[in-house]
Amino acid sequence: MTDADPAAALRARAADLDAHDPLAHCRGEFDGEIRAYLDGNSLGRPVRAAADALARFVPGEWGTGLIRSWDDGWFDLPLTLGDRLAAAVLGAAAGQTMVADSTSVILYKLLRAAIAAAPADRRVVVLDRENFPTDRYLAEGVAAETGVELRWIDPDPAAGVTADDLAAVLGSDVAVVLLSHVSYKSGYIADLEGLTALAHEHGALVLWDLCHSAGVLDVRLDAADVDLAVGCTYKFLCGGPGAPAFGYVAARHQAALTQPIQGWMGHADAFGMAQGYRPAEGMRRFLSGTPPILAMVPLMAALGLIEEVGIAAIRAKSITLGRFVIEAADALLADLGVRVVSPRDDERRGGHVTVAHPDFRAVTARLWERDIVPDFRNPDGIRLGLSPLSTSYGEALDAVIAIREELR
Amino acid sequence: MTDADPAAALRARAADLDAHDPLAHCRGEFDGEIRAYLDGNSLGRPVRAAADALARFVPGEWGTGLIRSWDDGWFDLPLTLGDRLAAAVLGAAAGQTMVADSTSVILYKLLRAAIAAAPADRRVVVLDRENFPTDRYLAEGVAAETGVELRWIDPDPAAGVTADDLAAVLGSDVAVVLLSHVSYKSGYIADLEGLTALAHEHGALVLWDLCHSAGVLDVRLDAADVDLAVGCTYKFLCGGPGAPAFGYVAARHQAALTQPIQGWMGHADAFGMAQGYRPAEGMRRFLSGTPPILAMVPLMAALGLIEEVGIAAIRAKSITLGRFVIEAADALLADLGVRVVSPRDDERRGGHVTVAHPDFRAVTARLWERDIVPDFRNPDGIRLGLSPLSTSYGEALDAVIAIREELR
Repeated sequence: MTDADPAAALRARAADLDAHDPLAHCRGEFDGEIRAYLDGNSLGRPVRAAADALARFVPGEWGTGLIRSWDDGWFDLPLTLGDRLAAAVLGAAAGQTMVADSTSVILYKLLRAAIAAAPADRRVVVLDRENFPTDRYLAEGVAAETGVELRWIDPDPAAGVTADDLAAVLGSDVAVVLLSHVSYKSGYIADLEGLTALAHEHGALVLWDLCHSAGVLDVRLDAADVDLAVGCTYKFLCGGPGAPAFGYVAARHQAALTQPIQGWMGHADAFGMAQGYRPAEGMRRFLSGTPPILAMVPLMAALGLIEEVGIAAIRAKSITLGRFVIEAADALLADLGVRVVSPRDDERRGGHVTVAHPDFRAVTARLWERDIVPDFRNPDGIRLGLSPLSTSYGEALDAVIAIREELR
Repeated sequence: MTDADPAAALRARAADLDAHDPLAHCRGEFDGEIRAYLDGNSLGRPVRAAADALARFVPGEWGTGLIRSWDDGWFDLPLTLGDRLAAAVLGAAAGQTMVADSTSVILYKLLRAAIAAAPADRRVVVLDRENFPTDRYLAEGVAAETGVELRWIDPDPAAGVTADDLAAVLGSDVAVVLLSHVSYKSGYIADLEGLTALAHEHGALVLWDLCHSAGVLDVRLDAADVDLAVGCTYKFLCGGPGAPAFGYVAARHQAALTQPIQGWMGHADAFGMAQGYRPAEGMRRFLSGTPPILAMVPLMAALGLIEEVGIAAIRAKSITLGRFVIEAADALLADLGVRVVSPRDDERRGGHVTVAHPDFRAVTARLWERDIVPDFRNPDGIRLGLSPLSTSYGEALDAVIAIREELR
């Protein structure tokens, strides 16, 4: 077998998959010029409608509506956009989701709220060493200030947190379990429903970080009886760099939870401006400062496309894309010492495929120069982010072939 | 004297002032269609360059640069833009200002940082009942969680916090004094330098809220020896609805202060993603989550115009505008029972002039229908926000005349 054979066969397969891709038409909806973009799991590409929406928004809602626009939708936008997001990609009923702040800030608010509401004998937060840094760092800060204990899980990096891992650390002293739905490194999908149920059996709440699942997995927060969740909107949701994050608080918990950053937008009567903070009813109480309205405009544009095709179709293509990339890596990279780190089981693999090799830091830099853009994660991983709306099978294969060329 | 006389004379004066306004050319730089906008102190109008910058940014830095743009400026943008803001409007040397989050969130972080660093016998935060709601509400929350005592000043609403007011409550138990530079209601300018010096004499730090002064007053943070400051960028700085806020920490304090929202962007090695939070050196330690890059684009565009004309020229026009509006209110509204609430002393009056009348809630609603847009503040105030770059004398007079027509 020559080198050319497997690549040629894969090219034919990619062409066929692209030709029959029910989401193929979505690729034309994206803006910008790039040869191969494999990092939609870090920063999603802009939909063309985002630039159009901003071009209308600046002279319109902002420049002409001006402060009147607060009455005409802006004041409630963190909640109405939250509801839209909930319906489109979170599997959550209305009234449980808000959009504002950054993931870190919302995580801080919800973690603090959950700890404050926990019974006095529950003073432990469970989390894992593979969680995204901000989750770990934030929890460390919250532990230092509240005196709670952090109880760490050390999961198999490729397998992620399992029920056995979690069961081993749960107890009657646990207040909150803080987990990522999809591992930012391996792409492993944690069992949202099963781990939530397990935590509940032990009387703990679960706070899920959905940064790497929102917009690419068929997340079902309500069905899984999730308590709290947070996630960003600039990855698979294509909201733009630093777009505001979302927070979810199950309706049953809202009245009992209050958060520490008591800004005017969370007040029961924000424009009353009276003395004394009174938290609003419902999700508004989790808002703090003036919400980032302009930064929500591109997110709304991208959400339009997501609503049009539906999360089921997005997840279906995500699975096929991931399977194809693993097939390509096996065929083209395994003989060069590259390992597939991500789960091979479709049901356990999220929206990106991570491959590992000691030379990948240097390889990534060279790929970028060739306008082929995956990202590198310490110590030796290349993450191939597969954004079902904008990534073609051919583009993904181009990246794998380029990795092969750079390694040889 | 007939009604027409004073209005006619004022119209001639306004025309003359507009004809000789050295900033008159700036008006053409703004986008949107509105008859008379008198609320630039709440939400500044967009510069035309904002829409242009966004139209370039979406397909360019975002759509084509994609994650490579983090290396090409985004990662440091909260600090480089902070430095630019510091030089243009804050009177602050580089390395002391960051742009991120909302005013409420930054206020929370800096207040918590200052309390944590205070000597154990300083457990009081001084603030005033006329401060903007978010400042008061946040301080209440911080007091509840840290156990500090809030010691309230009840200033004369029109005069604001004076040296006597502050001296009466300072003592060796005070950790932080939290004040607004310009009152959101009356427009009164507090004595930034004098009150800061007074607090320092008693060993307290001062945290200034600059929301209503940044971009319209010649703020001199370094010269006044200010410790901490925070402010928003969507008022006189025209950054757009919900644009990110800024925080200032004097260089001498940075090493001793740490804030509680320990997100990955404040880590000494953000992309190392290692175990354990280590705060970065300098201002980066006050960042938390992924910064709102896209939302900074309009701010940078507006800052270009501000840098071009300079804050001294902006303040000079602000004074003349305010004086003219008070003259018009005296001539056209006083006989209808309208009071000028804002200081008549130019040196004590910020960028807006507040007038009061029991019917002003209803009057404001009718003005809005006529495309004349000031804002209303409980219980009876109309704030005439005068944004020197975009407000003409004629426009300001139109608003005063319209108020007269609605009251009659």
